Amino acid sequence: MSILVVGSIGLDNIKTPFGKVENILGGSAIHFSYSASFFSPVNVVGVIGEDFPDEHFNPLRERGVDLRGVETKKGKTFRWSGSYDYDLNQAHTLETQLNVLEEFNPNLLNEYEESKFVFLANIDPELQLEVLKQIKDPYIVVGDTMNFWIEHKKDALMKTLKNLDILLMNDSEARELCGTHSLLEAAQKILRLGPSTVIIKKGEHGALMFTDSTHFAAPAYPLEEINDPTGAGDSFAGGFLGHLAQTKDFSEATIRRAVVFGSVMASYNVEDFGPKKLQKLTTQEIEKRYKEFEAITRF
Amino acid sequence: MSILVVGSIGLDNIKTPFGKVENILGGSAIHFSYSASFFSPVNVVGVIGEDFPDEHFNPLRERGVDLRGVETKKGKTFRWSGSYDYDLNQAHTLETQLNVLEEFNPNLLNEYEESKFVFLANIDPELQLEVLKQIKDPYIVVGDTMNFWIEHKKDALMKTLKNLDILLMNDSEARELCGTHSLLEAAQKILRLGPSTVIIKKGEHGALMFTDSTHFAAPAYPLEEINDPTGAGDSFAGGFLGHLAQTKDFSEATIRRAVVFGSVMASYNVEDFGPKKLQKLTTQEIEKRYKEFEAITRF
Repeated sequence: MSILVVGSIGLDNIKTPFGKVENILGGSAIHFSYSASFFSPVNVVGVIGEDFPDEHFNPLRERGVDLRGVETKKGKTFRWSGSYDYDLNQAHTLETQLNVLEEFNPNLLNEYEESKFVFLANIDPELQLEVLKQIKDPYIVVGDTMNFWIEHKKDALMKTLKNLDILLMNDSEARELCGTHSLLEAAQKILRLGPSTVIIKKGEHGALMFTDSTHFAAPAYPLEEINDPTGAGDSFAGGFLGHLAQTKDFSEATIRRAVVFGSVMASYNVEDFGPKKLQKLTTQEIEKRYKEFEAITRF
Repeated sequence: MSILVVGSIGLDNIKTPFGKVENILGGSAIHFSYSASFFSPVNVVGVIGEDFPDEHFNPLRERGVDLRGVETKKGKTFRWSGSYDYDLNQAHTLETQLNVLEEFNPNLLNEYEESKFVFLANIDPELQLEVLKQIKDPYIVVGDTMNFWIEHKKDALMKTLKNLDILLMNDSEARELCGTHSLLEAAQKILRLGPSTVIIKKGEHGALMFTDSTHFAAPAYPLEEINDPTGAGDSFAGGFLGHLAQTKDFSEATIRRAVVFGSVMASYNVEDFGPKKLQKLTTQEIEKRYKEFEAITRF
């Protein structure tokens, strides 16, 4: 079944200890869409400016991603410049130009109102709510957020959380939101805010999934080459929700496998800059790495 | 089969955000012995001063630990004072008094020369070598070390590494020893220095095991209560080598299970100050948590 994603689409300048790229295609909706497209059809809702180079979308079109929900507005495309030190877990934002994203007011195509699988990528929680209002009867709503919204739009964020089935967060964001160092305690608090499942992403240390009754720990894949962590969380979300939409099964066993598919996609994402690696990935490679995850965790 | 451990025995003052203890029994050989004693007989080689309160040893005696190899020397017992912030991964040493440990010259009982399972806990690598020289034909030698020896006794440490089957290390120590942030690269380097297996302990993020041909990732147990991380690494080593000595099997499957038993013992160790939790632990609790590790990792 198809997935609706709403999130940012932008042009990124990225510097890591391993290289530097400029004006590369980026944004949460982009990384998510590449990743999810290996599992399910994807419909993107987002906004770009008049300066957006249309050919950037060709690889997504080739993957069958539906971009009819991407609005072109007068003005410039969202831009993000960031850098990473050797501790690749922490992005340092050098500049954010919201541009057309500032006045983004998502208005869904009629047919998208029937979406059953929804990913609210990391954007203003008020926009996340706007989107949710327009969707009639979703099966699964997954949301992401970031420290900026925790600090500046906590009320709206709390409303969004009430409407999520699954929250994805970084470890540092979970700690900040819940005012505790313990991820277990943070997860327990989040489960009282709305989501029935919370997944805490720990970068090179893997991911943890919590529900009221269970806990699952997925390791990270031990990579030889990490070039750029940008979009790792969104590609994780893409593999995760992609697998759920593909199987239409929400059993705990499937959710666990979805976490591993998320980890697989994130591990590929970080091997090259921006979405470059995902652009040339194959289903065979995804299956192969999933099996490697099995091999490194069995005892 | 019995295990020989050589390491420190001391009196610790420990302060964590959750409390404070003084003159508590500590040292690498102690945490290891408590932990390993649930799996195999343990023979301890170490040194104490005349001020050591003999009753401290009673709980170890009750667990059948053989303390004939603990020498009492003129002078004071080794003392360590340390504190931890909320980031419990990093110990801050406030004071180290080597005392009798400074002139420790381990001289094994004749019968210990036949030891088949040996743990060289974190002490001067020259002493580790001294002990190894006296052991005739061990099956498995496991070693630990720390940043101090990497910085001050690198040559001796390199000689010790040549003689180890399995090296246990913290992530930060592995990075420092190998001059790389990548744990995968660090592991690959270490495997060329002598050990055929390296286990990198990542505190709250679990442990990674590497050999030339395989890799295993064990998560950490999600604890409700962490009071004192002192000795976590040594209790990990105790569960790990304890399981190997108990099964006398060195297959990869057994080594993986040993890593999980190590994680189980470390997770209990940190629940209370010093070795307090291990003093009252039961085999049933160990089995129970091992099963929980299975449950949180299966997909």
